[in-house]
Amino acid sequence: MWCYETLHPDIKLGIKGKSLYKKKTAHQNCQISKTKDFGNVLFLDGAIQTTEADEYIYHEMLVHPLLLTHPKPENVLIIGGGDGGVLREIFKHPVKEAIMVEIDRTVIDLSKKYLPKISKGSFRDNRLGLIIDDGAKYIKETPKKFDIVIIDSPDPVGPANALFSNQFYQGVSKVLKPNGVMIRQTGSVFLQSEVLKNNYRRIKKIFPQTFIQLVSIPTYIGGFFSFIIAAKKINFLKAKKSKIKKKYSKFNLKTKYYNPDIQFASLQLPNNLKELVK
Amino acid sequence: MWCYETLHPDIKLGIKGKSLYKKKTAHQNCQISKTKDFGNVLFLDGAIQTTEADEYIYHEMLVHPLLLTHPKPENVLIIGGGDGGVLREIFKHPVKEAIMVEIDRTVIDLSKKYLPKISKGSFRDNRLGLIIDDGAKYIKETPKKFDIVIIDSPDPVGPANALFSNQFYQGVSKVLKPNGVMIRQTGSVFLQSEVLKNNYRRIKKIFPQTFIQLVSIPTYIGGFFSFIIAAKKINFLKAKKSKIKKKYSKFNLKTKYYNPDIQFASLQLPNNLKELVK
Repeated sequence: MWCYETLHPDIKLGIKGKSLYKKKTAHQNCQISKTKDFGNVLFLDGAIQTTEADEYIYHEMLVHPLLLTHPKPENVLIIGGGDGGVLREIFKHPVKEAIMVEIDRTVIDLSKKYLPKISKGSFRDNRLGLIIDDGAKYIKETPKKFDIVIIDSPDPVGPANALFSNQFYQGVSKVLKPNGVMIRQTGSVFLQSEVLKNNYRRIKKIFPQTFIQLVSIPTYIGGFFSFIIAAKKINFLKAKKSKIKKKYSKFNLKTKYYNPDIQFASLQLPNNLKELVK
Repeated sequence: MWCYETLHPDIKLGIKGKSLYKKKTAHQNCQISKTKDFGNVLFLDGAIQTTEADEYIYHEMLVHPLLLTHPKPENVLIIGGGDGGVLREIFKHPVKEAIMVEIDRTVIDLSKKYLPKISKGSFRDNRLGLIIDDGAKYIKETPKKFDIVIIDSPDPVGPANALFSNQFYQGVSKVLKPNGVMIRQTGSVFLQSEVLKNNYRRIKKIFPQTFIQLVSIPTYIGGFFSFIIAAKKINFLKAKKSKIKKKYSKFNLKTKYYNPDIQFASLQLPNNLKELVK
């Protein structure tokens, strides 16, 4: 049996496996498949979100570049992230608090049941504040301020669409402290170049420091997968690698993919991508 | 209609398109498909070799890091490479001669007919010496010496198998001049880690300088795609970037993917890959 992703109309990934569970929630279609090469896999609206075998690449690269480059990240906001992988990596750092705003409780329940190694008990950490709500609404209404905002959402189809708007990024800027930093995924450079280009432009208008980080993740097809990192002050290209290396050792992060050299390497862009976002 | 790759047993890429041509040669099954997202695609024994849309990434990264880091590359040997993409990039440099040893003339004929933009007339360059023969046999028998050897072959199944052996790498070392450099592809880090590990060990026993270069190529699934670069003397991690940048500008290479920053970034390895080849 082949499980196919249906995110892109003209290209698709098939993984040998079988469906374990399907549910249509108020927000999206959730599916868990059991596969041979990638362990259990979470699909949302037909798009692969995370797999037991390669989730660490995405989650480590979403968390450590920000938490190691920011001089003292204490308050972290996560929009989405219901599988718990981002939480697992955040709680390796000495943060004071992580607020997670996940719109769909089913994603958390399914992940705890079928993908327990991803959150690895992080939902029980007493530094977590879990809110089941619309992340865009939370950003608009909260009076709280954060050092770090991590937007761990699906692609801009379905419920995540509001998390890719100008208004949303203005809200993110508003909830960030003066030295704050945000990160979001913007899909495949090759297959979703418009998503990357449009969001880069939107974010660049609001944040003085904007960077693209490139990572290769087996189950996210289409070559390099992109993240946008945006900061009010911190220049990630000019950050001190020696300081980051020191913190990386001190916190004993035990990463499988991330290291400080890879962090800096991931900010180097191919010529045609530089051209795309010029 | 979907065209599927059949290289890996438990994971596959499907691209919307239709088959234009199929032929079984003495060496392999050749197929050309016309696709919407990737233009014309060449399959050998069911594995995607090259597509019009993303071939430049593979070909630029196979050629420019070596030809720009070697102080004066004049004689280049290509094993395989029948689509002509490597030739196109080599002839942007002031080399004296490029010998190509391709085992299957059909690959050249099909590429000229269905993928003409890849070779872009390079088969007519008078610096080319084209030999239709077994690359392993050529390496064993030739008295010639080269500055650069580029092994542009399919995966180690079918006719390319001999190009992954100890004996073959000893032959490559023999045909390289004292300052010579070689490169070969070793597949997906995630799906073909044994190919990478075994070949890295074989090559490391023969060459004092051995490096892994990571690139993300949309139609080569499985996350990072790996290359091994091996040299008799040159340390690619310690090469002078300023010199490489100067040559890159001087030769006016007009690359779409490659630039000297990406070259150095591509040599940085994730933790679990460092562990794999320790």
